[in-house]
Amino acid sequence: MAEVNGKIRIKDIAELAGVSKGTVDRVLHNRGEVSRASREKVEKVLEEINYHPNIHASALASKKRYNFHCILPDHETADYWAYLEMGIEKQVEELLDLNVNVVIHYYNQYDVDSCRQVYASIPDLKPDGVLMSPLFKDSSNAFAAKLKELNIPFVFVDSQVEGVEPLAYFGMHSYQSGHLAAKLLVGDQYDIKDIVMFHAKRKGETGANQTIQRKAGFMAYIKENNPDCRIHSVGLYWNDRDKNDIIMDQFFRENPGIKNSVIFNSRVYMVADYFKKSAMKDMTVLGYDLVDRNVKCLKNGAVSYLIAQRPEIQGYRALKALAQHLIYKQEVKPVNYMPIDILTAENIDFYVNFPSI
Amino acid sequence: MAEVNGKIRIKDIAELAGVSKGTVDRVLHNRGEVSRASREKVEKVLEEINYHPNIHASALASKKRYNFHCILPDHETADYWAYLEMGIEKQVEELLDLNVNVVIHYYNQYDVDSCRQVYASIPDLKPDGVLMSPLFKDSSNAFAAKLKELNIPFVFVDSQVEGVEPLAYFGMHSYQSGHLAAKLLVGDQYDIKDIVMFHAKRKGETGANQTIQRKAGFMAYIKENNPDCRIHSVGLYWNDRDKNDIIMDQFFRENPGIKNSVIFNSRVYMVADYFKKSAMKDMTVLGYDLVDRNVKCLKNGAVSYLIAQRPEIQGYRALKALAQHLIYKQEVKPVNYMPIDILTAENIDFYVNFPSI
Repeated sequence: MAEVNGKIRIKDIAELAGVSKGTVDRVLHNRGEVSRASREKVEKVLEEINYHPNIHASALASKKRYNFHCILPDHETADYWAYLEMGIEKQVEELLDLNVNVVIHYYNQYDVDSCRQVYASIPDLKPDGVLMSPLFKDSSNAFAAKLKELNIPFVFVDSQVEGVEPLAYFGMHSYQSGHLAAKLLVGDQYDIKDIVMFHAKRKGETGANQTIQRKAGFMAYIKENNPDCRIHSVGLYWNDRDKNDIIMDQFFRENPGIKNSVIFNSRVYMVADYFKKSAMKDMTVLGYDLVDRNVKCLKNGAVSYLIAQRPEIQGYRALKALAQHLIYKQEVKPVNYMPIDILTAENIDFYVNFPSI
Repeated sequence: MAEVNGKIRIKDIAELAGVSKGTVDRVLHNRGEVSRASREKVEKVLEEINYHPNIHASALASKKRYNFHCILPDHETADYWAYLEMGIEKQVEELLDLNVNVVIHYYNQYDVDSCRQVYASIPDLKPDGVLMSPLFKDSSNAFAAKLKELNIPFVFVDSQVEGVEPLAYFGMHSYQSGHLAAKLLVGDQYDIKDIVMFHAKRKGETGANQTIQRKAGFMAYIKENNPDCRIHSVGLYWNDRDKNDIIMDQFFRENPGIKNSVIFNSRVYMVADYFKKSAMKDMTVLGYDLVDRNVKCLKNGAVSYLIAQRPEIQGYRALKALAQHLIYKQEVKPVNYMPIDILTAENIDFYVNFPSI
């Protein structure tokens, strides 16, 4: 029997409403069948006594064990995904006394096969809920359909997938952030006629969801405000600096006048390092995410702007959403856009010192 | 007799330390005389039992009534100071059961005499603590000296005053925010050779502290990055639109090529309205503060950038600092810079929907 907080007991509510204790219990926990008349009587009493369920106690009393599985790209310490995972872990601490078991699975974000393998392994684990970063569009779409079929609720962090409705999404409005990136990089400088856009070469599907949307927002701004501007797209390998040096050497030999560059992921420090090594001092560089190496570049002037999206809060709130839905039976807001934070050398110190969760 | 939380009572501590209950009470509340030897005995026991004072209960038990006086510019609904006051009121709610009485006094921010009158009236009210926005440098400096003489702790919001050390400051790093304003407005556009800077005409001292620092940061950026750029300074009356129209008409007749403008306070909507009325469509405008009318201008494109500084948090935390110092006897961090938030049409919606306190 679930508890009711404070001095009001289920017995009292049943008496006031003139129904059985079982009926009150079924209304409170939204389970089993209750006649409309009885439900209305109970709800009227609950309203009169200004009832707030002691949901934590009621979840504690439950014997059920929940298995949540999180699927994230493999990552290094202090990179974007590490911050997202820190948020998940902070939420795990809060769920400690609630019979919740959380497992994190990793895939190689530059290899769609690795991602598909992890997705394929999940159903056998009989998860109660799934938290995932749907980097690869088609595979994530298929996996989401499988989860729907199995009636397993899932939440997205970092990216959305068009046409898929997760229980909740926590992340940036990617298109708007791309629009903003163009405004910061180019603004009303109509004399800028060339921009280089770096992207990650990935094995398999044509790039991350998130990146595609950011790029679309960027292109829309340029098309509207500076339609003659050419965008040069250069693919880089994130694990092969020597190869990248050759690629960039060749590109800038062939396009010597380009001064503005953008990259829609958290590896901007690699590009900034190249510019530094090559003594290309007057480049304006914009990238994403507040990872340590990017912050260093921001502070020393190698990167002009970073756009950040609070990955800790994404992870924290996404896992919490699963608990709210499954354990506390609360409504969960389906779309939760993070603030799009603009960081520069001037404001970075005052941002990182501020509590984020 | 003050309480001790959990299962350990003052009596127990006294027994463990081999001193009287009165001695423990005096050490815990840092009042009255205690011999060094007794103090050390008590402190050793407190450390051993990992004692944390139940400060809220102990403050509740205290009979003392506290009078906090806040001194702010007079303001309209939904302007910058209204948000700061909302933060103060949120903190007042939290202090409700603590015998704290909070009074807010207002002065005309465009008239130093009005500010001086309010300052002069405060000592007779025998405040226990003062929260103030030291807009006028010299008068605020003199008032702060008076408070120090009377041994009344005070906190600053919004601006700092050079050479004055309040108990705590909550606000922006003004100089850095000005540097950032120049970067956003001009960046590496070396072809921009004229910028118009609007300022408020004030009666008395030469302008607000905050504004002076912002301007200094702005000028430093320009000097370093675009030394040939001319800054035109135009003074406006904040209560006389007709007069301002005449001033701006004349200025832009004499300086028709200027496309970039900045204003270091929250009245940027007045400038944006003028540009709209005058069909000056291609102006780039940067201002401060997330007041409703500015947000509207940001969304409709009349203002390109707003720099914001979380006034609610300033008010909330500044009043809290007085309570922490006076009631809870806690240490207070002296300098508390707010994040410098950059808002544009692209990210404003995701910022305002996010909880700020």
